[in-house]
Amino acid sequence: MAQKPSIPKGTRDFNPEQVAKRQYIFKTIQNVFETYGFQPIETPSFENSETLMGKYGDEGDRLIFKILNSGDYLNKVDDALYAEKNSTKITSSISEKALRYDLTVPFARYVVQHQNEIEFPFKRYQMQPVWRADRPQKGRFREFNQCDADVVGSKSLWQEVEFVQLYDAVFTALNLDGVTIKINNRKILAGIAEVIGAQDKLIDFTVALDKLDKIGEEKVKEEMLGKGILQTGIDKLQPLFTLSGSFEAQINSLKDILSTSEEGLKGVEELEFINTGIDTLGLKTATLQLDVTLARGLNYYTGAIFEVSAPESVQMGSIGGGGRYDDLTGIFGLKDVSGVGISFGLDRIYLVLEELQLFPETVNKSVKVLFINFGDTEALYSLQAIQKLRASGINAELYPDAAKMKKQMNHANKRTIPFVVLVGESEMASSVYTLKNMISGEQSKVNLDELISLVK
Amino acid sequence: MAQKPSIPKGTRDFNPEQVAKRQYIFKTIQNVFETYGFQPIETPSFENSETLMGKYGDEGDRLIFKILNSGDYLNKVDDALYAEKNSTKITSSISEKALRYDLTVPFARYVVQHQNEIEFPFKRYQMQPVWRADRPQKGRFREFNQCDADVVGSKSLWQEVEFVQLYDAVFTALNLDGVTIKINNRKILAGIAEVIGAQDKLIDFTVALDKLDKIGEEKVKEEMLGKGILQTGIDKLQPLFTLSGSFEAQINSLKDILSTSEEGLKGVEELEFINTGIDTLGLKTATLQLDVTLARGLNYYTGAIFEVSAPESVQMGSIGGGGRYDDLTGIFGLKDVSGVGISFGLDRIYLVLEELQLFPETVNKSVKVLFINFGDTEALYSLQAIQKLRASGINAELYPDAAKMKKQMNHANKRTIPFVVLVGESEMASSVYTLKNMISGEQSKVNLDELISLVK
Repeated sequence: MAQKPSIPKGTRDFNPEQVAKRQYIFKTIQNVFETYGFQPIETPSFENSETLMGKYGDEGDRLIFKILNSGDYLNKVDDALYAEKNSTKITSSISEKALRYDLTVPFARYVVQHQNEIEFPFKRYQMQPVWRADRPQKGRFREFNQCDADVVGSKSLWQEVEFVQLYDAVFTALNLDGVTIKINNRKILAGIAEVIGAQDKLIDFTVALDKLDKIGEEKVKEEMLGKGILQTGIDKLQPLFTLSGSFEAQINSLKDILSTSEEGLKGVEELEFINTGIDTLGLKTATLQLDVTLARGLNYYTGAIFEVSAPESVQMGSIGGGGRYDDLTGIFGLKDVSGVGISFGLDRIYLVLEELQLFPETVNKSVKVLFINFGDTEALYSLQAIQKLRASGINAELYPDAAKMKKQMNHANKRTIPFVVLVGESEMASSVYTLKNMISGEQSKVNLDELISLVK
Repeated sequence: MAQKPSIPKGTRDFNPEQVAKRQYIFKTIQNVFETYGFQPIETPSFENSETLMGKYGDEGDRLIFKILNSGDYLNKVDDALYAEKNSTKITSSISEKALRYDLTVPFARYVVQHQNEIEFPFKRYQMQPVWRADRPQKGRFREFNQCDADVVGSKSLWQEVEFVQLYDAVFTALNLDGVTIKINNRKILAGIAEVIGAQDKLIDFTVALDKLDKIGEEKVKEEMLGKGILQTGIDKLQPLFTLSGSFEAQINSLKDILSTSEEGLKGVEELEFINTGIDTLGLKTATLQLDVTLARGLNYYTGAIFEVSAPESVQMGSIGGGGRYDDLTGIFGLKDVSGVGISFGLDRIYLVLEELQLFPETVNKSVKVLFINFGDTEALYSLQAIQKLRASGINAELYPDAAKMKKQMNHANKRTIPFVVLVGESEMASSVYTLKNMISGEQSKVNLDELISLVK
C-alpha cells in the first residue's frame, strides 16, 4: 500500500521559510502596484482550450497543459478519428480545457468579456501561477508565478514613464540596488530594417541583432547575410554596433541613422519623451539604458520594449520585461485597445535576493515565544498568558505535550524560536513568568506586561 | 477569427473589488494562523496521479481533474488496450498527473516526503486553490480555495482547545459575531453504536443520525431500522434525541448513556477536557456547542469532529470544519503520526460577510487621488507630486491622456476615487494644488504637504 511519495518533475514544494520569502517579494510588488493605481484581478486556473490555443505559436500550443474531459470522454470520439490513433488530432475531442500559460491572454479575454463593466483606461495587476510543459532545468519550472501589471485603453507615453518608475520603486523597496532597465522600441527596429532594405526580414534581422552580446559583431553579420540581408545593408548598420555614450548621445546617433525612416524617427521620439520624463522625475536606484538590440517578444510588441537586468555582480538573465502592444484584445474581437505592461520574474528575483542576502531577517514570521508544558494545570495557566500575547500580535505557542524539558528546549532551538517561557508551580504561585532568551541564554522573572513588552 | 470569450463552467473571474474582499478574508485568517504558531507551506497544483487516486473514494476519483500527458501520448498506449476504447481503463495510460483535490492529502504527502527536514510537532497552514469536476451549482465551484491549519505529531488535546480558540479569533477578527462551533467525537458515536448493538453498522448509524435536523426523529429511526439496526437498540437511543441543556448537562447525560462503553466514555472525557479548557479561557464571540449528531468525514476522523455554523440570521451551510485523524500519513508509509486540523470555507464566509455587510469600507484599496491631465507640461509637474504621494503610501495616479476635463472627472466618479487634483498653469506658477473632494464637492488650494496630509 505504502507509496514512496514524490512530486511531478518541474514542480516544487515550498517550506515555511521559502513561502515567507516569496510572500515578501509578492507583497512588495503588490504594494508598489497599488500605490501606482493598479488593481488586482484573478482569472481561473484553466480556460477553455480555444481561448489559449493558437495564441503562443506552435511551440506554445505544444507546451500548454491540457485537461482530460471528465466522465466517459472516449464515448464522444468519432470511431474513424479514434482508429487513427493520432495524438495531435484526437486531443481537441478529449480535452476542452487547458491550464493558464501566461497572464496576458487570459487578461485580454477578461477585458473583452467584461468590457461593459470596465472603466477605461483600466490598470490591472495579476499575480498567479502559470503552467508550461517545458523541459525543466535550473531556474525553469513547469509551475511558476507571474506578476504582471498592464494598462489598457490609452496610448499615452506617460504610462511607459510610470512603468520605468515602477520598476525602480519595486527594486528599491527590495533593496536591490543597481538594476538596469533596458528600453527599446519596435519602431526603431522596424526603422533600421527599413533603412538597410530588410523591411520584409524584420524578424530575422532582430533575432540576429539580439545575439550581439552573446556571439559578437562578426557572427551577427554572418547570420544576417545567411538570412539574405544584403551586404550593402549590413554596412549601413556599422554605426549601430558602435553606439555608445549617454542615452541622449545614442538618441542623437539614432536620429542620424534613421533620418530617412518616418517610423524609425517616431520610435526615437517616443524614447526621447520617456527619457526626458525620467530625467526630470529621477530614479532612486535603477538606471535607464537604451539598448537597440533588445527585441523580446517582437511579434507582440508594437512600441516600447522593456527588459530589466539584475545588478552585474549576479549571474542572472532578465528579472523583468514588458512593452507596448497595440492590439491585444483584437484576437477576442475588441479592436483598437492599446495596452502596455510589465512583468516581474519572481523566481529569478528570489534567487538574486538569496544570492545577495537581501531578504530581511524579519521575513520569517515564525514563532517568537514557546511556552514549556509542565502538565495540564500549568498548560492551562500558560494558555491564558498566550492568549494575551497573541492578542498583542505576538506569535506564541504552547508545546502541546508535557514532554521532557530537554526535548521541549531542543524543539525551540531547532525551530530557532528566540524566547522560551517556563511556568511551573512557583511561577504560578507568584504570578510571574520565567523568560529565557534562547540566543543570549539570559533568564529573568517577569510579569505579564513585562513579558509582552520584552518579547515585542 | 474573433471568438466570443467565455470561461469554463464552475470557474470564476474575480474583479478588483472581489479580489480585495477575498484578500481581506485570507489576510485575516493568515494573521490568526501565524499568531497561533502555524507556518505556511505550498504544494504543487498538480500531483502525480497515484498520490491522489484512491484517497477520496470512487466518487472522488471521478471528480479529480486529470492532466493529459504531453507529446505523442497515444504512442505509449498498448494497442489491445486502445482497441477497447474504454475511458476508465485508458486514463492511467494517457494521464500521469492530476490537479489537487484538497489540501490534506498533499499535506500528508509533504510530511512523509520531507519528514527528515520537519521538526515535529509540525504546525502548518496552507491556503491554495483546489479543483473538483463536480456539477457546478450555487456556492459550489470547480475551482475554489481552501484554508487549512493542521498540527501533526502530537496527540495532545490542547490542540483541540486551541483550534476552538482559533475559530473564535478568526470570526471575531472578521466581525462575524454569533458563530456556533459544534463539536463531537468519533469515540462517542462508536460508543453509542456499541451500546445499541450496532458496532458493525457505525457508518449507517451515523449517516442516519446526521439527518436528525433535516428529517426528524421518526424518519431517522425508520432509516436505522431499514439498515438492520434492531428496535431494542433504537429504543436505547431515546435519551439522545432529547439531549439538551448546557454542554456540562449533555456531558452528564452522555456519561449515563455510555456507561457500559469504554470507548464512548473516553470520547466523553476528551470532550470534557476541551470544554473545561474553553470555559477557563473564554471565547470572544463564538459559542461552543456539543452536537452528538455531527459526523462529517467519519471515515477519516478518529477523535474530535468540528463544524462551524454561520450566525442563525444567515441561511448558509457550514463555514468551517475539521477534526482529529490518527493515521493520515500511513497511506504514504509513515505510521503513527497523529494529526488534527481545521478548514475555513472561504467562499461561504465571503457570502456571509457580504450578506451581513461586514466587509470594512477600507477593504477596497483603490486609488485615493486622480490628477487631471492638462497637457504634457502639467502632467510632468503632476507626476513629481504623485511621486511624493506614493512615497507616503498613498495610492495616486495621473489620468494618462489630456482628455476633456469632463471625461476625466467622469472617470474619477465612475471609479469612486475620493479626491481629484487639478494642476494648471496658475497652480504651477504659485506652487499650489487645487484639491477637489469628490464626495462633498469642496475645492481648496493647498501646498504639497497639506495635500499629502489631507488625502491621508
